[in-house]
Amino acid sequence: MTNATPAYAALARTWNRLHRLSHLRDIASWDEAALMPPKGGEARSQALAEMDGLLHELITDPALKTQLAAAAAESLAEDERANLREMQRAWNASNALPQALVEARTLANARCEQAWRRQRPANDWAGYLENLREVVRLAREEAHCLAEGSGLSPYDALMDRYEPGMRSAEVDRVFGDLRQWLPDLIRRVQQKQAGETVLEPQGPFAKSAQQALGTDAMRLLGFDFEAGRMDESAHPFCGGVPEDVRMTTRYREDSFLPALMGVIHETGHGRYEQNLPREWLGQPMARARSMGLHESQSLSFEMQLGSHPAFAPLLQPLLVRHFGMQPAFEPANVHRLLTRVQPGLIRVDADEVTYPAHVILRYEIERALIEGQIECEDIPALWDEKMMALLGLDTRGNYKDGCMQDVHWGAGLIGYFPCYTLGAMYAAQWFAAMRRENPALDAQIAAGNLAPVFGWLKDRIWSQGSRWETPELARRASGENSLNPAHFRAHLEARYLG
Amino acid sequence: MTNATPAYAALARTWNRLHRLSHLRDIASWDEAALMPPKGGEARSQALAEMDGLLHELITDPALKTQLAAAAAESLAEDERANLREMQRAWNASNALPQALVEARTLANARCEQAWRRQRPANDWAGYLENLREVVRLAREEAHCLAEGSGLSPYDALMDRYEPGMRSAEVDRVFGDLRQWLPDLIRRVQQKQAGETVLEPQGPFAKSAQQALGTDAMRLLGFDFEAGRMDESAHPFCGGVPEDVRMTTRYREDSFLPALMGVIHETGHGRYEQNLPREWLGQPMARARSMGLHESQSLSFEMQLGSHPAFAPLLQPLLVRHFGMQPAFEPANVHRLLTRVQPGLIRVDADEVTYPAHVILRYEIERALIEGQIECEDIPALWDEKMMALLGLDTRGNYKDGCMQDVHWGAGLIGYFPCYTLGAMYAAQWFAAMRRENPALDAQIAAGNLAPVFGWLKDRIWSQGSRWETPELARRASGENSLNPAHFRAHLEARYLG
Repeated sequence: MTNATPAYAALARTWNRLHRLSHLRDIASWDEAALMPPKGGEARSQALAEMDGLLHELITDPALKTQLAAAAAESLAEDERANLREMQRAWNASNALPQALVEARTLANARCEQAWRRQRPANDWAGYLENLREVVRLAREEAHCLAEGSGLSPYDALMDRYEPGMRSAEVDRVFGDLRQWLPDLIRRVQQKQAGETVLEPQGPFAKSAQQALGTDAMRLLGFDFEAGRMDESAHPFCGGVPEDVRMTTRYREDSFLPALMGVIHETGHGRYEQNLPREWLGQPMARARSMGLHESQSLSFEMQLGSHPAFAPLLQPLLVRHFGMQPAFEPANVHRLLTRVQPGLIRVDADEVTYPAHVILRYEIERALIEGQIECEDIPALWDEKMMALLGLDTRGNYKDGCMQDVHWGAGLIGYFPCYTLGAMYAAQWFAAMRRENPALDAQIAAGNLAPVFGWLKDRIWSQGSRWETPELARRASGENSLNPAHFRAHLEARYLG
Repeated sequence: MTNATPAYAALARTWNRLHRLSHLRDIASWDEAALMPPKGGEARSQALAEMDGLLHELITDPALKTQLAAAAAESLAEDERANLREMQRAWNASNALPQALVEARTLANARCEQAWRRQRPANDWAGYLENLREVVRLAREEAHCLAEGSGLSPYDALMDRYEPGMRSAEVDRVFGDLRQWLPDLIRRVQQKQAGETVLEPQGPFAKSAQQALGTDAMRLLGFDFEAGRMDESAHPFCGGVPEDVRMTTRYREDSFLPALMGVIHETGHGRYEQNLPREWLGQPMARARSMGLHESQSLSFEMQLGSHPAFAPLLQPLLVRHFGMQPAFEPANVHRLLTRVQPGLIRVDADEVTYPAHVILRYEIERALIEGQIECEDIPALWDEKMMALLGLDTRGNYKDGCMQDVHWGAGLIGYFPCYTLGAMYAAQWFAAMRRENPALDAQIAAGNLAPVFGWLKDRIWSQGSRWETPELARRASGENSLNPAHFRAHLEARYLG
């Protein structure tokens, strides 16, 4: 930022201001999910909506349009140019939306999500539906505004908020590929695993011991506890700000694996955030590139690394430390536990083989919902039908473990679900590239040396922030400039049928 | 708010907006003290400073000046008129300060406080002094600006932020009265107690058991857990928002009394906030009247009620439930523990008889500091001298238990300390009025019926918010329209020498 670039410098100051105000928003939003008592909900929703309105007001200030145009003509360094591109992208998305819609959306989403926390355990679909209708109505309106501004289809316009540049035609291509071989793969893996003996760990596992285990696992995975925390919430997530990452998980005393793998998953998100380019923090270039890329980090940690055959021996001493010795903690058994494939109702508890089925189902429903082909009332029947078709499971009447299980739709996060499976595919692509460059990788992991994995991810993904658009980031990281689902298939076949 | 009062209605909308944005500030600020990891500190300070700057910008919008003048001429209901008076007061205070000072102050205070958390345990006065100088420099500048706008002396102008209408001449009057009889009272109480046998509770007391005990005590005292939380921080406080009160305490495993009495104290603050007039929330009229009034509530809970001879029998079953039976939990002994008078180094651990000495010392130092009679460098020597004179204790070289023990000065809360003792005096005045109106009060407390106390406080104090200026509030509550320190003296003499 020099005097030679006054428009760019003014924009950078504005984005710093947005970053600081968003910081308060992000911490209060994390607090809402992790700590807030119920009667604080209405006031919190109003406060968040007010802030969203204010941020929207700041980014739709007419001065910015002029500054963006002027900055484009200024002499900028390459990284400043990338930063300007990201400013323009954020500006386009915000300026497509009227202020009143932004405030109404935040309010409706927060109300629906808060009520969902009570309604889900009560299996109260009727109650949830009432709030969800308003959320979907506003999401459609938002999709319409964004589509008008960008020329995208309404669903693509929503998805673009989470996965910039990704289009449903591309999602159809990779999910279509998946649909062809996944059901057969699930069957073959289940057949193979039917002959295996797996010992169940014997609980109960006290929450405090699980928390201590999670802390040890986060340390093993390099999480910086001076710049983040792990707490509890109904739906695990990673929030906060890059300078202070707030992750959550949830505990069940009958099984420690869901919380542990949740912790490992969120730690991948957390390290991405903690290692974004610090000298650029506050500027859009320092933000994580996309949610698909974000999921590629959590899944690199949870699946590529956490379910790696060499990871169970690293976990075993931690399990013994916190729960005492038991036969189920033998590393080969822990690995079998971590790679057991079993169609189930709950997405976040799904193994990596059946997980894509959960995503495909949600993608198909939410896309039809936004495109107006179905209404909220139609969700349960479609859910039942697709769960039966994809995973052979009956979900009729079981809303809480069916279409009410996720926070996303009620919180207005429509267009997000594809990112999970795109992330799984990117993660496989990253590890394939790591192995090509470093044939000793698996031996290093087996020796407990995870530094090469973290070093590669930090170098190629974390520290890059949003410097490159996704195809260029992928090319620089992996040598392939688009998402190649073949790596994901090869990974699953090698791990589960090899 | 009708169309007949357009200026008032516009102001009310602005204050609602300020309330909502402050909500995020207050939650993030609580989080900073209770949860934030250290590396989040710099970004949090910047975010809070940005928000303080923004709030200041909104309240110094020139439109408000016109609206305030116009609203004064509109036909308002009595409560709207009170609300307008409070708006005007907030406007006066904010408009006296330049924007840059507000931002610099928030930043300096947050930095000094964050560093203090490490410096205090390290007894690092030199490190603290460096930050404190900047805090005091900005506080003097602020005092100067506020004094110019109001015609008050600089120190009175700072104190007026916490205790509107209170002047140091009045503080001198009541503290002067105290100084006359307090040292002799301390001596007489110590002589009397020298002959008493007090059994020490045998620890350790696990933190989890202390937390459960605190929860039970808060329930007994009517705290609404649906609208607030209790967590931990280095310095106990009550923060958050009226809709979601966030209190903190701290635990030592060798003694449960400091945390328990801290919890009872903060619960008094918490119930005041939770019971402010809900239909007015968002408007200045719904805010707690003053910090002295606030302390009068925490001390009504901690001292008037918590150290009441009839309260120990209510506590005893809770102690047994969480720590098991031991001879020290016998109610008469618990009461002796709660009323033991012993000059000590730490203000927050002080008994109610020696507590005013801690406040007088701080008041004298901070007033001289703001009036430029002393500099930050002079604080330790003055502290040592006054602690010796008032309580006979040697604090030389012990900064961490001396002038570095409190969060206040480093956090820029200068002018606050008198509120603690004003609060203790108000609390005595409230209980004297309760007993005049309801001679059965002590018998009701002894029967475990605390509802009459809570009902009186809710009716006379909590639900009144800032409807009345303090003398009128005091008159309506107690029949006396100013602070009468005679009640405090009578209370101490009855309880400790009776």
